[in-house]
Amino acid sequence: MIKLHLNGPKLLEQIRALGEIGADAQNGGRTRIALTDTDKAGRDRLVAWMRELELEVAIDRIGNIFGTLRAPGDAAPLMIGSHIDSVTNAGALDGCYGVLAGLAVQRAYREAGVTPARSITVAAFSNEEGVRYQPDMMGSLVHAGGLALQTALDTLGTDGTRLGDELQRIGYAGDMEPGAIMPHEYLELHIEQGPLLEAEQTQIGVVEDLQGISWQQVTVTGNANHAGTTPTRLRHDAGFVACAAVTELRRLARDSGTTLATTGCMRFEPDVINVIPRRATFTVDLRDPDEQRLQQAEAHLARILRALAEAEGVTLETEQLVRFQPVTFDATLANTIEASARRLGLSHRRMTSGAGHDAQMIARIAPAAMIFVPSQGGISHNPREHTDDAQLLDGARVLLDVVTTRLNPTR
Amino acid sequence: MIKLHLNGPKLLEQIRALGEIGADAQNGGRTRIALTDTDKAGRDRLVAWMRELELEVAIDRIGNIFGTLRAPGDAAPLMIGSHIDSVTNAGALDGCYGVLAGLAVQRAYREAGVTPARSITVAAFSNEEGVRYQPDMMGSLVHAGGLALQTALDTLGTDGTRLGDELQRIGYAGDMEPGAIMPHEYLELHIEQGPLLEAEQTQIGVVEDLQGISWQQVTVTGNANHAGTTPTRLRHDAGFVACAAVTELRRLARDSGTTLATTGCMRFEPDVINVIPRRATFTVDLRDPDEQRLQQAEAHLARILRALAEAEGVTLETEQLVRFQPVTFDATLANTIEASARRLGLSHRRMTSGAGHDAQMIARIAPAAMIFVPSQGGISHNPREHTDDAQLLDGARVLLDVVTTRLNPTR
Repeated sequence: MIKLHLNGPKLLEQIRALGEIGADAQNGGRTRIALTDTDKAGRDRLVAWMRELELEVAIDRIGNIFGTLRAPGDAAPLMIGSHIDSVTNAGALDGCYGVLAGLAVQRAYREAGVTPARSITVAAFSNEEGVRYQPDMMGSLVHAGGLALQTALDTLGTDGTRLGDELQRIGYAGDMEPGAIMPHEYLELHIEQGPLLEAEQTQIGVVEDLQGISWQQVTVTGNANHAGTTPTRLRHDAGFVACAAVTELRRLARDSGTTLATTGCMRFEPDVINVIPRRATFTVDLRDPDEQRLQQAEAHLARILRALAEAEGVTLETEQLVRFQPVTFDATLANTIEASARRLGLSHRRMTSGAGHDAQMIARIAPAAMIFVPSQGGISHNPREHTDDAQLLDGARVLLDVVTTRLNPTR
Repeated sequence: MIKLHLNGPKLLEQIRALGEIGADAQNGGRTRIALTDTDKAGRDRLVAWMRELELEVAIDRIGNIFGTLRAPGDAAPLMIGSHIDSVTNAGALDGCYGVLAGLAVQRAYREAGVTPARSITVAAFSNEEGVRYQPDMMGSLVHAGGLALQTALDTLGTDGTRLGDELQRIGYAGDMEPGAIMPHEYLELHIEQGPLLEAEQTQIGVVEDLQGISWQQVTVTGNANHAGTTPTRLRHDAGFVACAAVTELRRLARDSGTTLATTGCMRFEPDVINVIPRRATFTVDLRDPDEQRLQQAEAHLARILRALAEAEGVTLETEQLVRFQPVTFDATLANTIEASARRLGLSHRRMTSGAGHDAQMIARIAPAAMIFVPSQGGISHNPREHTDDAQLLDGARVLLDVVTTRLNPTR
């Protein structure tokens, strides 16, 4: 087997350099929301780095960027991907780490003067974060054929702009048809964005599946009455029903062990101290790695809400905002990741991805798996997002080892 | 006993005329927030009506308006009072009904050409609603000596204005010292603002006491983490703790039977669907007619919060916003109201006032009691506030009967 060397300093330098684009000196972190001027600046930098490595650069019609280190023959490439768009005041690692580690793998081949047995493509997918344009993971979803290109281009943003127009404006509406580069298999290296690896002092997460996600918005409508004059038995308190549902959801999560349930948004109307809320609007984020258990949780939520609404005499409206089935990643790739971690002497564990990633979209069209490294405090989407340099390099070495293993199978 | 006649059409006409001042054609109702231009217009109208009845009009330094129908001698007057300021998009009855019914009582004496055995003063107290300047019931509180005049005048409004300046501006900073007109006894006629009388098809509420009020604002601080990656056991979810507290408060109210518990305001931060709330801020409105039970409810809330905070690993901050002890009204006056209702053939019940009223402040310095009439649907502080004309006149007839009874005791 060829012994390749990871250029660690160069990888860390590129992570820092990309992280300076869109930096917010006032509030910390950096903001490179998809298809804004700062996203364009980040893309320009990435493409320049790809050209330095003499990769074949291609841009498709949804703005996904591909840089290919070409091997002889027409075989489908091994793809390493993630994204470089960000949320507001983001850390420097979410997405960017995976893309730049892909370049580091290609650089290892270049620096050793070795041509890989199969082409290696690094992909940076458009609009993974979904801050301005819904849905998130849009570029990889279009690439995988899960969303029509025209629908994606016609998406209106929270600021009223049309995605296709913004893509043109920043110069990243490419010519290539989405899905033209079909991966042989797909790898994504990412920070965990959760606390498990850190809590268990484990260096590498071997991600074997990814939770299904169900997002709902619930609107409870009751009657606004005077807090001092309305007996408890005559109340139709929308706020109480919302709070009781959140309380029950915690019980569901505790009893289940695998289901996660979160209410991140909650609003009362009229939001006056001595008025019983007429309306309460809240969100429910349910996740489970098993589709059947996720459906059970959704059904349980519906039952909770019906019972509470009937008892209190309020009405309900439930809107499904997002629904993704769980994804099981490719077992062979997961085994390879585990073997690489073991070979490199890194502690590791099998785990489920709690967050959504481009890998879940690409898993629709190719074998895919993910590698996680620890996130300090489990924090991401925040300027305080942090992973130690040594941990970042551990993850990149595992990625390089997995790639060389896959491209040079030991027989 | 002198037989006096209530001029019903005139009372209803004045309620309607006052209700047109500050009317909002767009959103319904009328808005006469204390010491605004529309409040001034309402005050001017009231004073004009007082002068039509040839009352002695006096304005004190906090802007309370007094109109006295003078009897021979220096005896303290029987006072009938309430307020004419309003909330935003209010009904026409809250407060105004009690003041104008007071004028109707004085008119009954005028029209009969009878001089009362004791002076009758109608009072319209400043800023009962407390929309722009806190605390509410301010004019009657200053009148009763419960708040220093200078403190009240120096109050800054939600719009940054100083109360004393606004009082000057609208021309209602009077010369009289607050409390100069000390009532012999005090009556207040008001819509119930609750659903009990309507639900029980009862015409008159004999208000024998008024609930104590405890307003608190609770701030829960936990950690904002990713909804998909943070196991339930590692969460410090401020939103969950807030919701669980609201759920427990409903149990407290149900178990108690007399305590009312309401959460009218609730806010999550950062209020993002897939982020566990870092902070939840909510209000608690506790009421009970018994001081000891109110204290028990407060203690219970504190215990609930402590237990929840400890279990979830979050911190708490509790701020007391308002605290009024329960008020027991004068038994003799309550008996008189009950006897008048009976004499007039009106169904009646003893009851507790759930809302705060000027009567609770005046009860500190004189025997006081209240008369309630039904509120359709229990609705007030809303353009849909409604009481049938016949019910309004029933209440005013009871008031007139009580006044003539008190001024001409049958022996």
